[in-house]
Amino acid sequence: MNDNQIHVIPLRDFPIVQTGDDISGLIESAIRKKSIDLIQGDIIVVTHAIVSIAEGKLYHLEELKVSKRAEEIAEKIGHSPERVEVALREASEVLREKPVLITKTKHGIITDFSGVDESNAPQDTLLALPENPDASAKRISDSLSNSLGFDIPVIITDTQGRPWRKGAVNLAIGVAGMSPFIHNIGREDLYGHKLRGSLVCLADQIAGSAELVMGQADEGIPVVIVRGVDFNKEDGTASQIIRSKSDDLFS
Amino acid sequence: MNDNQIHVIPLRDFPIVQTGDDISGLIESAIRKKSIDLIQGDIIVVTHAIVSIAEGKLYHLEELKVSKRAEEIAEKIGHSPERVEVALREASEVLREKPVLITKTKHGIITDFSGVDESNAPQDTLLALPENPDASAKRISDSLSNSLGFDIPVIITDTQGRPWRKGAVNLAIGVAGMSPFIHNIGREDLYGHKLRGSLVCLADQIAGSAELVMGQADEGIPVVIVRGVDFNKEDGTASQIIRSKSDDLFS
Repeated sequence: MNDNQIHVIPLRDFPIVQTGDDISGLIESAIRKKSIDLIQGDIIVVTHAIVSIAEGKLYHLEELKVSKRAEEIAEKIGHSPERVEVALREASEVLREKPVLITKTKHGIITDFSGVDESNAPQDTLLALPENPDASAKRISDSLSNSLGFDIPVIITDTQGRPWRKGAVNLAIGVAGMSPFIHNIGREDLYGHKLRGSLVCLADQIAGSAELVMGQADEGIPVVIVRGVDFNKEDGTASQIIRSKSDDLFS
Repeated sequence: MNDNQIHVIPLRDFPIVQTGDDISGLIESAIRKKSIDLIQGDIIVVTHAIVSIAEGKLYHLEELKVSKRAEEIAEKIGHSPERVEVALREASEVLREKPVLITKTKHGIITDFSGVDESNAPQDTLLALPENPDASAKRISDSLSNSLGFDIPVIITDTQGRPWRKGAVNLAIGVAGMSPFIHNIGREDLYGHKLRGSLVCLADQIAGSAELVMGQADEGIPVVIVRGVDFNKEDGTASQIIRSKSDDLFS
């Protein structure tokens, strides 16, 4: 029964992260404390919240000057002016203001409130997405790989709403040490026919599988180990997942 | 290390499915052959392909009369007229014709070619989505639950492209025996604050985690067991996941 299973392993009792903390160091010591042996092929999935906190990507409410525009939008949609203000600062483009503020972030991600949230934010702050989640993933991956002696891919995630489908899902916003995709070119279907080239977003599916333990614990689980996935080691990024406007088949 | 892990278990050596076959019976005997003991809390994930085949939701190419409109669209986008024809028959609305035919299916799902595909289709046929995937999931779930003596939720999936993000992901198109969602109301964040009500689409994340073994085997793996997910047993459907147009925050 054990052949080719995938295991999604929560890393429990992760410490509260402070700005300035070294995330890869915290992951290493948490893994050591739990006597978990990482093995080649393991992927580390990290919620962006602890990365943003460690990197200081948060806004202190008392220092925040709310613009007139943010106040107007907040009033119109019945929402916190501070969150709207930070969302506007983090946005490269505002796509719609109501019923919910939808923006494109500087990373090209289209989501509500630019991914800015008070959940998992330290008292009296708002958390934004990391400045460069691919670079953050690479730093964590390089550091873990160095001390373990083999390569450990890292995926940084955010739980986001979607067009057409209710309920948020966890998505990859930073990737290092693996391709975010798998090409099914050359694989065979149920009938032994070669599949035409279909591109699957492995990184988003791994992010979603990690959320199944991240979100459901009584305490927060910011780091998850996903074991047994057959991925392509070629170096990739989450920015490869973002479609350019001209390339978007749907919208 | 075993606490609260999630296991994604491929059901290997599943037989080739024929129209008229009883999917739940095939699942039961495949599980018996592999000496897998299903336990309470297990979720069975089934690719729609074998459900469509069993239910005869396929179009034989030689009997297919291609309409003028299908021929015109196929010519314009350089695609098979037969696939366009079947996609149009399965659509309730055509959203765009090029560069790829995007439709809304009768189920309300927005996807390319109405989910019609030649992958995993028997020779000289095209596979469509099941007529009523929620009802199919319920039939399989009821039958498995009956013979096992405890409730087994079932999720029927399809791998679909998305707006704004490259790479298809596996999504829930039929659900039975569980709510497709989990509400994080009342749960606590990393700081012990109660989370505001956030709705997470558990079923899509489970579908995605199953694809990590479904798509990657050398042979096709049409059935996967997902073990260890904390879900809400209240009876739900995949049609609950579909947003109404007026409710859509993004598009």
